[in-house]
Amino acid sequence: MSIDTNIPRALWFDDDRDSLVVVDQKQLPFRYELVHLTSYKECILAIQDMTVRGAPVIGATAAFALYFAFVQHGYSSAFSIASKAIREARPTAVNLMFAIDTLLKNINSKTSKLDVLNLAKQYAEKDVQDCFLIGEHGLKIIEALYAKKQDTIHILTHCNAGYLATGAHGTATAPIYAAHKKGIPVHVWVDETRPRNQGANLTAWELQKNKVDFTIIADNTGGHLMQHQMVDLVIVGSDRTTANGDVANKIGTYLKALAAYDNQIPFYVALPTSTIDLSIKNGVNEIEIEQRDARELTHIKGIDKNQIIQEVQIFPNHAKVANYAFDVTPARFVTGLITEKGVVAAKKESIHALFKK
Amino acid sequence: MSIDTNIPRALWFDDDRDSLVVVDQKQLPFRYELVHLTSYKECILAIQDMTVRGAPVIGATAAFALYFAFVQHGYSSAFSIASKAIREARPTAVNLMFAIDTLLKNINSKTSKLDVLNLAKQYAEKDVQDCFLIGEHGLKIIEALYAKKQDTIHILTHCNAGYLATGAHGTATAPIYAAHKKGIPVHVWVDETRPRNQGANLTAWELQKNKVDFTIIADNTGGHLMQHQMVDLVIVGSDRTTANGDVANKIGTYLKALAAYDNQIPFYVALPTSTIDLSIKNGVNEIEIEQRDARELTHIKGIDKNQIIQEVQIFPNHAKVANYAFDVTPARFVTGLITEKGVVAAKKESIHALFKK
Repeated sequence: MSIDTNIPRALWFDDDRDSLVVVDQKQLPFRYELVHLTSYKECILAIQDMTVRGAPVIGATAAFALYFAFVQHGYSSAFSIASKAIREARPTAVNLMFAIDTLLKNINSKTSKLDVLNLAKQYAEKDVQDCFLIGEHGLKIIEALYAKKQDTIHILTHCNAGYLATGAHGTATAPIYAAHKKGIPVHVWVDETRPRNQGANLTAWELQKNKVDFTIIADNTGGHLMQHQMVDLVIVGSDRTTANGDVANKIGTYLKALAAYDNQIPFYVALPTSTIDLSIKNGVNEIEIEQRDARELTHIKGIDKNQIIQEVQIFPNHAKVANYAFDVTPARFVTGLITEKGVVAAKKESIHALFKK
Repeated sequence: MSIDTNIPRALWFDDDRDSLVVVDQKQLPFRYELVHLTSYKECILAIQDMTVRGAPVIGATAAFALYFAFVQHGYSSAFSIASKAIREARPTAVNLMFAIDTLLKNINSKTSKLDVLNLAKQYAEKDVQDCFLIGEHGLKIIEALYAKKQDTIHILTHCNAGYLATGAHGTATAPIYAAHKKGIPVHVWVDETRPRNQGANLTAWELQKNKVDFTIIADNTGGHLMQHQMVDLVIVGSDRTTANGDVANKIGTYLKALAAYDNQIPFYVALPTSTIDLSIKNGVNEIEIEQRDARELTHIKGIDKNQIIQEVQIFPNHAKVANYAFDVTPARFVTGLITEKGVVAAKKESIHALFKK
């Protein structure tokens, strides 16, 4: 099987050159550079230095890294050592370990190089398929809005839940790309998404690359736009969704949900069902919110007047900073969940029903 | 009359050196530099290059500029030309024109240099007095919370409504400084406040200077903190308040009001009654929201690794950007207005009663 290269991807395998091609996300949005990875050690480095980022993309890179290790060492103790090194490239990336474990289950002394390559391709393709289906289901929501309005549909999104994070299509962006492909006029309000600016740096970049109309705004702006009927729909991604439909996502998502609710604007969350955690009910009480390095807030990358990428410190040294990475949007503010299995209400019964399908 | 120099000021008159001393706000938060202005031309330049900023501070600088023009030219046609030049230093600054007009009304051929100096000092002092009274009235709210909680009161604020914008005390910060002075333990969550970062650059700087405990957060963070009982009170400033109590303030204020409301946290707005516009009722419908230069979003100042202040471009050139400066918080989300005449409900009747006092 070979990956459809007609849709934009964060990574793909180049059969002719026997290499994994990845978009160097460190350089975005200022430079678009493709990097060819041809050994497992190069893959590990790309994961560690954030050339690739986004959990599914990291997982897929690890799957191809395992293929390179197999090519180099065959089914041997050296291969086993290499697979361990890949597995530990970034300690907190669950997808990384999951990818390695999934592939290793199917590799033994009789497995050929081509078999391992196909396993890696299948692994990467599963994520892409889920995102494609999210796009198809979400498309119906946009189509319904467009049938009524007969004018450009303005969609607000927060952070990057796009193809750069997921391999292809994205989650929150999948319905947008599907609508754009179908010829429905869409315009996206892209929250800058402090800290780390994934909206301005990644979402805006990929929308532009795909010729989808967009405007970057400060995270403070969405409420004002919603008060003035300038937003028809909000779609965001999710890092973790509870059995009751509470949604943990990039910090600030909750504020946009409140504004959507106050202005009666539909607020949807796009997610693969694999990110639903049935063991948790109340998101606000039960999900511990990670605090990240203050440097994400105090420092920022840009280009200086000589077009050189530079990092500058934007707060003074004395400043005490808190950097909470996520917040939880209670289910009562969520209009619906867009999953690969269909669109459902953010309610206990509907969510449980998804897993019986 | 002479200005009390025991409280921190954005500007003051140095009688010994016959000069106006201003904090160079262009250098904040990285450098604290005082600039001595000794002629009206220097004052105009300071207004134009944003050495001074904040409408009341600009107004006060203009008042002292008029004094310098009077010293230089006496009551003459040259003085008249100079006063016109000051009046036009920045075309959109209403306080600037108001300051010049207020002083000119009281200047004639018999006025002495000392008279003009005292008029300028009085003009500057009126703003400071209003802010002082806002602090005294707002203090009671913090005292009441402290009497119940008997532990640190956590106050969230947005943008800079501090002494750097108003001469002394500030509006939103005045009750905080008053509480701190009284020994009530307070801690301030400072919204970074994109774009322009007035929270991180100015509010944090002045709180630190006054030894008030604070933490800078991304604008996205306040909702999460409120969900977790980490905020006891929100106080913000206002650029314009309607007869019905709707509040126009820095973009993003509305989102914080929504979160405070959802979590039953008191949300107060501190303002001099001079910023209440009785001719307007519905803020969302009637107040036109200014769009500002995209550069405020696309570029940011910081210090590079050599400690040099540098401006970098943080979004790519292709990015379309919208920069709305303010939003309107509907009165139904406002717990009360803290004015120099007392604390009142954000309601038509209470607001009208203020003007009968």
